[in-house]
Amino acid sequence: MTFRYPNGKLYTPADQTGKPAKKESNPNYSNRGMTLEEDLNETNRFYCSRNIAIVHKKPTPVQIVQVDYPRRSAAVIKEAYFKQSSTTDYNGVYKGRYLDFEAKETKNPSSFPLQNFHEHQIAHMTQILEQDGICFVILSAFGHIYLLPAGRLIHFWERMKDGGRKSITKAEIEDSGTLIPIGLHPRIDYIKAVEALYF
Amino acid sequence: MTFRYPNGKLYTPADQTGKPAKKESNPNYSNRGMTLEEDLNETNRFYCSRNIAIVHKKPTPVQIVQVDYPRRSAAVIKEAYFKQSSTTDYNGVYKGRYLDFEAKETKNPSSFPLQNFHEHQIAHMTQILEQDGICFVILSAFGHIYLLPAGRLIHFWERMKDGGRKSITKAEIEDSGTLIPIGLHPRIDYIKAVEALYF
Repeated sequence: MTFRYPNGKLYTPADQTGKPAKKESNPNYSNRGMTLEEDLNETNRFYCSRNIAIVHKKPTPVQIVQVDYPRRSAAVIKEAYFKQSSTTDYNGVYKGRYLDFEAKETKNPSSFPLQNFHEHQIAHMTQILEQDGICFVILSAFGHIYLLPAGRLIHFWERMKDGGRKSITKAEIEDSGTLIPIGLHPRIDYIKAVEALYF
Repeated sequence: MTFRYPNGKLYTPADQTGKPAKKESNPNYSNRGMTLEEDLNETNRFYCSRNIAIVHKKPTPVQIVQVDYPRRSAAVIKEAYFKQSSTTDYNGVYKGRYLDFEAKETKNPSSFPLQNFHEHQIAHMTQILEQDGICFVILSAFGHIYLLPAGRLIHFWERMKDGGRKSITKAEIEDSGTLIPIGLHPRIDYIKAVEALYF
């Protein structure tokens, strides 16, 4: 089932972007029947429960138009629309520092399409970096999970704006990104990469 | 119009909690036809535009049950319910540090009722403090706006849990809280109080 924003733009819930990549493309991460969002939620619950970091996914923004209030029962939202988020999906705190990230997935075997991101998200990431926040993207691609610092993503975004390629090559991600260890608890141990890169 | 959560709990949108307090009670802040949420949103837009701090209000969490997708138009959410948020309403970054706060208002002239907060919010604030985040509540009360550090709120909350009073007295708020300057741009300059208290 596909949804669209009022502007006609396709709405892709994170839990539908997480389909396992093709078998041959993914020795480590895919074909586990889990979505990237589920794995990150489990990871964040693990971090919370151990007090390692406190990170939550923001609710999907919805424009509420009409609400019914049946007696003695819950309010029912009868008409509402998906809104474009003006920020990234995840933020929180690690050792007092502000963490902010977006998680995206591609099944493209050779590059990561920049169309996975939006201008307003890049602008938000730029503001977070100016405020000295820790900002990055978690990319599920080529059978691995990478942490790519926001500064590198913005570099590739501006290259596209200047007429360059509309994607980040696999080699560029392997060069600019940090591999995130995959496990059971937590599933996507991105704090290890954060610790190595920012502390 | 009143809404309820599926559990029957009353849903009070922030923009309905911000009615101006009684005239006589408020020389400085009330009777301005503005709500606390509107004033904080304007303040956060001001901070963002000047790159002073990047703080956003989280979307209201909604459980989406049914979505219609009319051809060539936006997806329409036809059935959804309000969910209880598991965190505070506002978070963001200031000078690299994580900021997290909730904003509440009372028209009670002599004390601030603790029923304005929920157990899960207190638990969240406790986790943020353990992670060395900057966590507080912004209280509109007695004609003023106060920043009350989360540690003090948790103290008063535990006093209630131990059978003590169910509110924070005006004197306690004046003693434990910091007055936030009220202005035009920004309207509620809470970063001044954050700077004074935490930096």
